[in-house]
Amino acid sequence: MDHPTALNPRDYAVFSDEKMGKVTLFRSDHLLVGLNCFEPGQGHALHAHADMDKVYQVVEGTGLFLLEGEETTLDAGMVLVAPAGVPHGIRNTSDSRLIVMTVLAPGPTPKR
Amino acid sequence: MDHPTALNPRDYAVFSDEKMGKVTLFRSDHLLVGLNCFEPGQGHALHAHADMDKVYQVVEGTGLFLLEGEETTLDAGMVLVAPAGVPHGIRNTSDSRLIVMTVLAPGPTPKR
Repeated sequence: MDHPTALNPRDYAVFSDEKMGKVTLFRSDHLLVGLNCFEPGQGHALHAHADMDKVYQVVEGTGLFLLEGEETTLDAGMVLVAPAGVPHGIRNTSDSRLIVMTVLAPGPTPKR
Repeated sequence: MDHPTALNPRDYAVFSDEKMGKVTLFRSDHLLVGLNCFEPGQGHALHAHADMDKVYQVVEGTGLFLLEGEETTLDAGMVLVAPAGVPHGIRNTSDSRLIVMTVLAPGPTPKR
């Protein structure tokens, strides 16, 4: 978005049959606010960011979240923080769509 | 919290009759995740952070959010970004409690 504005994250969700849908809602040098959108069965493989902390917040649905080798099921409204360097991932093991808001800080460098 | 863990933000809400309740859920050099908790009639006066972006997400209730001279009513689930330097504030004009999750990046320097 060009201009800061109030938004309902679920209005911006994008799904794909092939893989997790990824959306950027806001980005600056300090942070990136985005969405990860999962059809049933889709996931985001375990990965880590060396220098970025990530905040997950479940907007809609239920997902299996992996953090530091532990699996936790999170429902809508719940929050999980993956500090820099800690491997994390998500799998939508439910029968419904899963929308997760992510805040990354500092924001990742744009790909060129 | 000492250890990153899954949480339901509303479980951590703290209210005060005197002023907005303020809670830190997670903090690092990169960001601070917290809660602002408002009884009916309470607010957070218009202010700006020179070097920090702030993401608001309404956890529970309804509030009047001020940003760049505009007033917007936000319900549970909605998100507002206040970029660095942009004045922002909140007022709980409803009859119910209001809980707002905030993500500040980079995190503020701890007060000494």
